[in-house]
Amino acid sequence: MENSNNSRRSFLKKAALGSLAAISIPEILAASAPKYKTKHMSLSKGQIILFQGDSITDWGRAKDDPGFNTSHSLGSGYPMLTAASILEKHADLDLKIYNKGISGNKVYQLVDRWETDCFAIKPDILSILIGVNDLWHKLNGTYNGTVEIYRKDYIALLEMTKRVLPNVKLIIGEPFGVRGIKAVNDNWYPEFYGYQKAAREIAAQFGAAFIPYQAIFDEARKHAPGVYWTADGVHPTLAGAQLMAQAWLQTIK
Amino acid sequence: MENSNNSRRSFLKKAALGSLAAISIPEILAASAPKYKTKHMSLSKGQIILFQGDSITDWGRAKDDPGFNTSHSLGSGYPMLTAASILEKHADLDLKIYNKGISGNKVYQLVDRWETDCFAIKPDILSILIGVNDLWHKLNGTYNGTVEIYRKDYIALLEMTKRVLPNVKLIIGEPFGVRGIKAVNDNWYPEFYGYQKAAREIAAQFGAAFIPYQAIFDEARKHAPGVYWTADGVHPTLAGAQLMAQAWLQTIK
Repeated sequence: MENSNNSRRSFLKKAALGSLAAISIPEILAASAPKYKTKHMSLSKGQIILFQGDSITDWGRAKDDPGFNTSHSLGSGYPMLTAASILEKHADLDLKIYNKGISGNKVYQLVDRWETDCFAIKPDILSILIGVNDLWHKLNGTYNGTVEIYRKDYIALLEMTKRVLPNVKLIIGEPFGVRGIKAVNDNWYPEFYGYQKAAREIAAQFGAAFIPYQAIFDEARKHAPGVYWTADGVHPTLAGAQLMAQAWLQTIK
Repeated sequence: MENSNNSRRSFLKKAALGSLAAISIPEILAASAPKYKTKHMSLSKGQIILFQGDSITDWGRAKDDPGFNTSHSLGSGYPMLTAASILEKHADLDLKIYNKGISGNKVYQLVDRWETDCFAIKPDILSILIGVNDLWHKLNGTYNGTVEIYRKDYIALLEMTKRVLPNVKLIIGEPFGVRGIKAVNDNWYPEFYGYQKAAREIAAQFGAAFIPYQAIFDEARKHAPGVYWTADGVHPTLAGAQLMAQAWLQTIK
């Protein structure tokens, strides 16, 4: 009873402070995902970082721009926000940061363009966020995939990647949805959990750093409504993209 | 001699650590501008923040978008990066962040559009960065201004602002140039120092927080070449824009 009273007092104290306190990302991570041990990686001189994924990653980047480190080539989403922070903090490292996400992609479409959009770039750090369309496009009738196909294709992609780039460091983001906001209705569940579980297990299998975006957005909803973080349940707002960038930066020492 | 040896040792130690250490903005501010005492302001619920200025502020924002808090309305420069950070950290405050910078503007052009692009928005916090074109366009022969006109117009702008919005908190950014990079040649000096001095003195006169961007970029050049921070001496790269955003965020408690 003593403990439970203390917890309650602590909770009330936190709640009272809530409207004044800024949200700290380590706090959100700690609150939402104590079970995920973040793997930290260090950056070194001249490294190449590549962001891969679907529209959440793509986010209006100029597809005809073969460049790096610019908002023109990186778009307006979490890769650009992450890059801005890394490039400013680690100016002495002469890093190159690329974004090759493409709207609407499912995991098999990454496989199709991996030669030009990954191997040709030779990343030292490869960040992948893929999976939401693998279910979404199935639910809207434009794709015939299953969670088994997602898992199989994702594993094939990473096996191929490790063969060609044996030293690449992997970062795998959890596919996420903000339930109840527009696109993300109850039809997604429980099936979507299977895709999230697959991504988590694949990250462990390949020794990748795993970013638990779902837990992070779930925790963020306690601070502001779902539409503050995502316009349609799938695509983050600027605030949501910054939340993702901050979580991504946690993987860097 | 003892002191000077110690300093030298300390310098050599720092230089040796240089390639490993991330740049901390408080460190850059401390190194570059110990004489500027940053004024801190606190944010509160429902406040409106407005960014005003020239192309460095504008940076590709959608001019036909009357909105706020989105990358579409905020562009790809330091206002968007600053907003991303504030909106994520202070999600519980329900802030509205606008950008109304316009490429090519000089200070008198802010005066011309102040009714619609400032007073109609009723900002609680107003951030202004203006002045580089006041000299640049004079040097390239498209404008007849002087530093006296810049100072006079800037003071008139702020007097009018304080009359209409007596409680507005002001943030004034120092006009800056990265000397030796393309546009910013020796012709700018020493004249440009006069514009910087005017901005600094006007900030003091109106009790504004002052952001010493010049000192910040000067310090940043010790960590990476000038072109890493600005493409043409005037317009920051993504890394440079993030440097500005981090400096701006120092004005918030």
